Amino acid sequence: MSYERLTAENAAVLFVDHQTGLANGVQTQSPADFQNNVKALVTIAQVYDLPAVITTSASDGPNGPIMPIVAQGLPNAVVVHRPGEINAFDNADFAAAVKATGRRKLLIAGISTDVCVAFAALSAKDAGYDVYAVVDASGTWSKLVEDAAITRMVQAGIVPINWVAVGAELLAHWQSATGEAHAKLMGDHLPFAGNNYAGFLAAKGQP
Amino acid sequence: MSYERLTAENAAVLFVDHQTGLANGVQTQSPADFQNNVKALVTIAQVYDLPAVITTSASDGPNGPIMPIVAQGLPNAVVVHRPGEINAFDNADFAAAVKATGRRKLLIAGISTDVCVAFAALSAKDAGYDVYAVVDASGTWSKLVEDAAITRMVQAGIVPINWVAVGAELLAHWQSATGEAHAKLMGDHLPFAGNNYAGFLAAKGQP
Amino acid sequence: MSYERLTAENAAVLFVDHQTGLANGVQTQSPADFQNNVKALVTIAQVYDLPAVITTSASDGPNGPIMPIVAQGLPNAVVVHRPGEINAFDNADFAAAVKATGRRKLLIAGISTDVCVAFAALSAKDAGYDVYAVVDASGTWSKLVEDAAITRMVQAGIVPINWVAVGAELLAHWQSATGEAHAKLMGDHLPFAGNNYAGFLAAKGQP
Amino acid sequence: MSYERLTAENAAVLFVDHQTGLANGVQTQSPADFQNNVKALVTIAQVYDLPAVITTSASDGPNGPIMPIVAQGLPNAVVVHRPGEINAFDNADFAAAVKATGRRKLLIAGISTDVCVAFAALSAKDAGYDVYAVVDASGTWSKLVEDAAITRMVQAGIVPINWVAVGAELLAHWQSATGEAHAKLMGDHLPFAGNNYAGFLAAKGQP
Amino acid sequence: MSYERLTAENAAVLFVDHQTGLANGVQTQSPADFQNNVKALVTIAQVYDLPAVITTSASDGPNGPIMPIVAQGLPNAVVVHRPGEINAFDNADFAAAVKATGRRKLLIAGISTDVCVAFAALSAKDAGYDVYAVVDASGTWSKLVEDAAITRMVQAGIVPINWVAVGAELLAHWQSATGEAHAKLMGDHLPFAGNNYAGFLAAKGQP
Amino acid sequence: MSYERLTAENAAVLFVDHQTGLANGVQTQSPADFQNNVKALVTIAQVYDLPAVITTSASDGPNGPIMPIVAQGLPNAVVVHRPGEINAFDNADFAAAVKATGRRKLLIAGISTDVCVAFAALSAKDAGYDVYAVVDASGTWSKLVEDAAITRMVQAGIVPINWVAVGAELLAHWQSATGEAHAKLMGDHLPFAGNNYAGFLAAKGQP
Amino acid sequence: MSYERLTAENAAVLFVDHQTGLANGVQTQSPADFQNNVKALVTIAQVYDLPAVITTSASDGPNGPIMPIVAQGLPNAVVVHRPGEINAFDNADFAAAVKATGRRKLLIAGISTDVCVAFAALSAKDAGYDVYAVVDASGTWSKLVEDAAITRMVQAGIVPINWVAVGAELLAHWQSATGEAHAKLMGDHLPFAGNNYAGFLAAKGQP
Amino acid sequence: MSYERLTAENAAVLFVDHQTGLANGVQTQSPADFQNNVKALVTIAQVYDLPAVITTSASDGPNGPIMPIVAQGLPNAVVVHRPGEINAFDNADFAAAVKATGRRKLLIAGISTDVCVAFAALSAKDAGYDVYAVVDASGTWSKLVEDAAITRMVQAGIVPINWVAVGAELLAHWQSATGEAHAKLMGDHLPFAGNNYAGFLAAKGQP
Repeated sequence: MSYERLTAENAAVLFVDHQTGLANGVQTQSPADFQNNVKALVTIAQVYDLPAVITTSASDGPNGPIMPIVAQGLPNAVVVHRPGEINAFDNADFAAAVKATGRRKLLIAGISTDVCVAFAALSAKDAGYDVYAVVDASGTWSKLVEDAAITRMVQAGIVPINWVAVGAELLAHWQSATGEAHAKLMGDHLPFAGNNYAGFLAAKGQP
Repeated sequence: MSYERLTAENAAVLFVDHQTGLANGVQTQSPADFQNNVKALVTIAQVYDLPAVITTSASDGPNGPIMPIVAQGLPNAVVVHRPGEINAFDNADFAAAVKATGRRKLLIAGISTDVCVAFAALSAKDAGYDVYAVVDASGTWSKLVEDAAITRMVQAGIVPINWVAVGAELLAHWQSATGEAHAKLMGDHLPFAGNNYAGFLAAKGQP
Repeated sequence: MSYERLTAENAAVLFVDHQTGLANGVQTQSPADFQNNVKALVTIAQVYDLPAVITTSASDGPNGPIMPIVAQGLPNAVVVHRPGEINAFDNADFAAAVKATGRRKLLIAGISTDVCVAFAALSAKDAGYDVYAVVDASGTWSKLVEDAAITRMVQAGIVPINWVAVGAELLAHWQSATGEAHAKLMGDHLPFAGNNYAGFLAAKGQP
Repeated sequence: MSYERLTAENAAVLFVDHQTGLANGVQTQSPADFQNNVKALVTIAQVYDLPAVITTSASDGPNGPIMPIVAQGLPNAVVVHRPGEINAFDNADFAAAVKATGRRKLLIAGISTDVCVAFAALSAKDAGYDVYAVVDASGTWSKLVEDAAITRMVQAGIVPINWVAVGAELLAHWQSATGEAHAKLMGDHLPFAGNNYAGFLAAKGQP
Repeated sequence: MSYERLTAENAAVLFVDHQTGLANGVQTQSPADFQNNVKALVTIAQVYDLPAVITTSASDGPNGPIMPIVAQGLPNAVVVHRPGEINAFDNADFAAAVKATGRRKLLIAGISTDVCVAFAALSAKDAGYDVYAVVDASGTWSKLVEDAAITRMVQAGIVPINWVAVGAELLAHWQSATGEAHAKLMGDHLPFAGNNYAGFLAAKGQP
Repeated sequence: MSYERLTAENAAVLFVDHQTGLANGVQTQSPADFQNNVKALVTIAQVYDLPAVITTSASDGPNGPIMPIVAQGLPNAVVVHRPGEINAFDNADFAAAVKATGRRKLLIAGISTDVCVAFAALSAKDAGYDVYAVVDASGTWSKLVEDAAITRMVQAGIVPINWVAVGAELLAHWQSATGEAHAKLMGDHLPFAGNNYAGFLAAKGQP
Repeated sequence: MSYERLTAENAAVLFVDHQTGLANGVQTQSPADFQNNVKALVTIAQVYDLPAVITTSASDGPNGPIMPIVAQGLPNAVVVHRPGEINAFDNADFAAAVKATGRRKLLIAGISTDVCVAFAALSAKDAGYDVYAVVDASGTWSKLVEDAAITRMVQAGIVPINWVAVGAELLAHWQSATGEAHAKLMGDHLPFAGNNYAGFLAAKGQP
Repeated sequence: MSYERLTAENAAVLFVDHQTGLANGVQTQSPADFQNNVKALVTIAQVYDLPAVITTSASDGPNGPIMPIVAQGLPNAVVVHRPGEINAFDNADFAAAVKATGRRKLLIAGISTDVCVAFAALSAKDAGYDVYAVVDASGTWSKLVEDAAITRMVQAGIVPINWVAVGAELLAHWQSATGEAHAKLMGDHLPFAGNNYAGFLAAKGQP
């Protein structure tokens, strides 16, 4: 297995069922951690201008609308409201939207890890994509379930990853064009990095 | 490895040694969580009319009778009381009952994960079935043991899964015939879903 | 400090803001554990015919309606919908309903432990009641918050208790009139007790 | 509050409802830890010849018989089988047996901490005894419940303690008559102590 | 002990050493949780227009500048940079600034709970203030230390509290003038509340 | 990968460096749990008359002598004291002793999981044995290390297993000759099983 | 209760049974954390030139010699080897050594928290000293035992504290004579502080 | 997969971004544990004279300088300051320095596990090296992220390992030339080993 990197040119990001009602079912992270991690992945999509597809499951029912941090953070994303398909790839519009990105590497996050993420990831893998499950921008009902879901995906060749690693692989070099925006992303969503940055400026006597 | 889905036509479910005495040995989940997860898998078998085989180990001794939530929830399941075989597939009646379901995909849950589930799963895999270990409707004596048991099964190609994912793969589409029953299943066994549903109806002004 | 017992004659139970929306904020127990514990306290109120007052906070908004297990379990309870008072005792109807129970000992449970339970408990203590916080039928946003809330209440002389202890103090003797209903309560909500009971009957050769 | 020590002359130990069925409900320690801790307290009673009273609740039903490590370890203890009283002190025989020990300091352990231990401890305190709750030879359904139970007892002036501290306070000096038996107790029930002892002898070249 | 409530007229809030370098030492909460909790307390001070005093310890050294979320969130707060006093009340300017607020009830948060919060709280209590330690907007090096620090404060009569309870006690009634701002505070910092709100609006068909 | 079972005829058990000094370094289980698990594996070797090889590393130094529960439990085992080889298979006597058992399936337990167990297991695998790491009769310095060690072994095709599963695979059928001894093993080392057994007998009215 | 501060003139520190054999029994912290915390308290005694009394229990037996970090760190401390008294104050030499310090405030740390620390602390309190239990430079067999021991001490009016708080109360002001040594203490034993310091110097362009 | 051992002749060690600012972001171990583990790996490099390459990322900015324990412990290591490349192998000097070691087996540790370690490890694996990730001398932001990072590396054939196992494989035999230095390494960084050693000497009557 060779190590082919994520780039802003080969990757797309899929937000699967980050809906307000479903978010209340996440028990694998503290709510503030989850909120922070999802927001960070949204920001990565913005900073790297990744094609993004947002999809929902029965969003006019109790699952609720798209989480505002996702909807507002990606105003230009393609949105596919699925009337009832659990597996997002069973919806032709979604599958087409993913294909239309022209990317081979799919970053998939969602609620829940075991259903919305795993099903889409397994289908995407089957369809020939390189698939990454962004586990910290995803969540589910219990640690036992999360572990089983990640193991099931890994068993099928899907790569588990986290938003910091996604961002770092896309950035590649701090002198890239996205360097400054990336530094802000890190400072905003990894508090120690923000603290270090503020402390450093102060030590330098900079405002 | 291609992703072949669970359907109501290709899957059977095996409840291996969900007995009252053994249930008292489960330390990997809170008792209420375990009770809830087992009941949910039972309900899935009902809702999707999956062939179900229940088996026990020395049920006239201290292991105790079948947990009432299993026995009462599946009154039409085939029940095989094993006089002494630890591995359920060593009992010819059980092996025959499984074969008689005509299904290739076996969902196995039980107590304990490391013995009753793992042994049956490894034998089923050997016999050519596609095997899924339903880890949250199963339990054992410690987290260390549970992890080792799941790893051993995964090493042999068995798929770890949870009841929500099993149900979702069977449902496939919310407009399926089982949609309404499935919604009730979710509301009853994932409390946040029930809360969302009640809140949604109230917001709509519906009773 | 003398030990005056809870009895069916001296105790009332207050369910403060067990609403579907708020229930989704509980992170101090697994959802199934919380559901189970609340249901058990509801059943205790039924079995011992305790005066019960249910109150809600802005139940026509996002906090949602009363959790069905509370509303349906106590159809005869007094219900006070508070339009905006955070502290239930600031609502004259609620305070009057509590007073009308004629009981000096108040069992208070609710969501959240730090606000709805603690505020009502502190006010009740101030008003001269003997106050018990039923901590496992209550919940809140984090363990740190729960500990702080319980400590604050204990500092003020409020007694922390759990539903099993509440029930046991009310039962007092297994040969009481409520013995049989109490045994069912235990079997239904403490799974090991139900397992023991089923195993015992089986060993006795009873159905 | 002055520090009056436990001695072999002023203390008695009460084993409240250490029954096999109830033991299966303990979730606050691993089963091996609980078994080990109870056995250690039993041994302390033997080594220091403390008056011991064993009591059970409905031991001919699903709660089961006295745990063998308690019954066999204390063959001369007074045993009071309570037909139905939850609070052991509500049983006149038990109260009399405790009084008959002639001791003012009561070490109470049992299952569950929140009911059998707490109720007996609160009543004993009320009756004027100095009361110690031996928390590690006791157990209950969840950590939240255990914490609440201990807090409730501490609020009433009961002293929380563990078997090592009980034993050490009774021993007082390693050159006491019980020194050798006490060393064996420690080696058997605190594995690091046994390891240290064996390692020390080996280093000394002693068998 | 009577229950005197926090109001916007009787309370002041003290931010003690929320500095970027010290923030990196907090291990009692996830960084995102801590960031979120501090920001929430800052917002409470804004919404209720509470007198706020911010103080730092050697902020021109490695402890670093005030955390931006505190400094920027409270541009009008009095800021006292302490050159070397560990206990903020040992600094005359700080003590005077607190006195100048004219409030008797002090809400104290800071880094670390065991030093900056505890020392200030103990001195404030000694000086006759009613003191509240806002434990979730504070943090320290380990859970053991946090527990010891809170216990030490409680032993001295200081009230442990969390930001949600502080806010709720100040709000008192949802129809207060601050109701709308308070709802936004809750939605922003308790994610489930934000999710509920968005879901409720969607169900109502509101944007 | 086919599922070939452990039998009393094809398996040997290796106890690698269960020494008193090393046992004090185990932090992955409570001491009582570890003691209990090691003793159980020793008993399995006795009950099934498995060839057993015990080895030590520098046992005349601070690592200390063989844990008494191992040495005394297996008086007839071959014991190889290694003067300095870390990897037991680097010691010719040990390698010969293992070979002399004539078994292809090796059950390896020891302290520590990452060194003594992993090294021996990797070498045994390399030498063509079927290797099982008995993870609960082994221990090490931290959970992170234990997980890494097990993963490293699994990566090399070694099977992680626990003593209950080892015993159950050897037993195969409760009516085997070892059935009674096996029941005693379970009752002694899985406390819930002992409790169930005692409760069952009592319900049956048997002593 | 008024807040009287620890000073270099009113405090003494007692190291009770920090022996190598006993140290292996500590399960309430990771070994590296415990080592670090004990070393920090030793350094505080050095930096503030506090009278220190070290005592051991049967140090010529399996409990082992004084931990080298204590013995070597405090070469001038009074050392009292107790032949057999469990409670250090039962040894006349120890009690005299403590009295000879002329200090009213005693900082007590040791192994184990429930025996060596608690017994000495309770006796010291009884003798009229102001007593502080330094909980993080102490340890014991389990979290349950640690909590019970601290609660027992708090119940008797003993103050729980940690080494950072002890040091900070002694320092009082960073411009004190001990300021530089104190900064080194913090940098060495609170890694984040050392990191901040190194980062600050680097930002300043200082070596 | 055959088991080829680490030796002092075939291994090199890479310290990737152990910088003071980044160290403050590690949340997967306690700071003292992390400090201890990194120092131990540094000492192994010294004791076995392994070629070591240290690299940093933007060390003149907020990430900070090399942690002193790394820089001072390995004064002769090659140091490559990367101006901006996230993946150390993207820096030609670093890649050349690694190649110049002439070793095929690379031990990689760093901050963070998911970025600095994983990226370098994946690239090294791709380049044909045998790669080991030293997981306990590495750290990251959360357990979920650490698990995902290790799984991703294992999926690519990288071996997870810890410093004790690295050292033990290099030592191979206690009578090796490095035996004495190795014993000191163990005593210094695994506290129980140091305790055992001191206790052993004392029992032998050696100073």
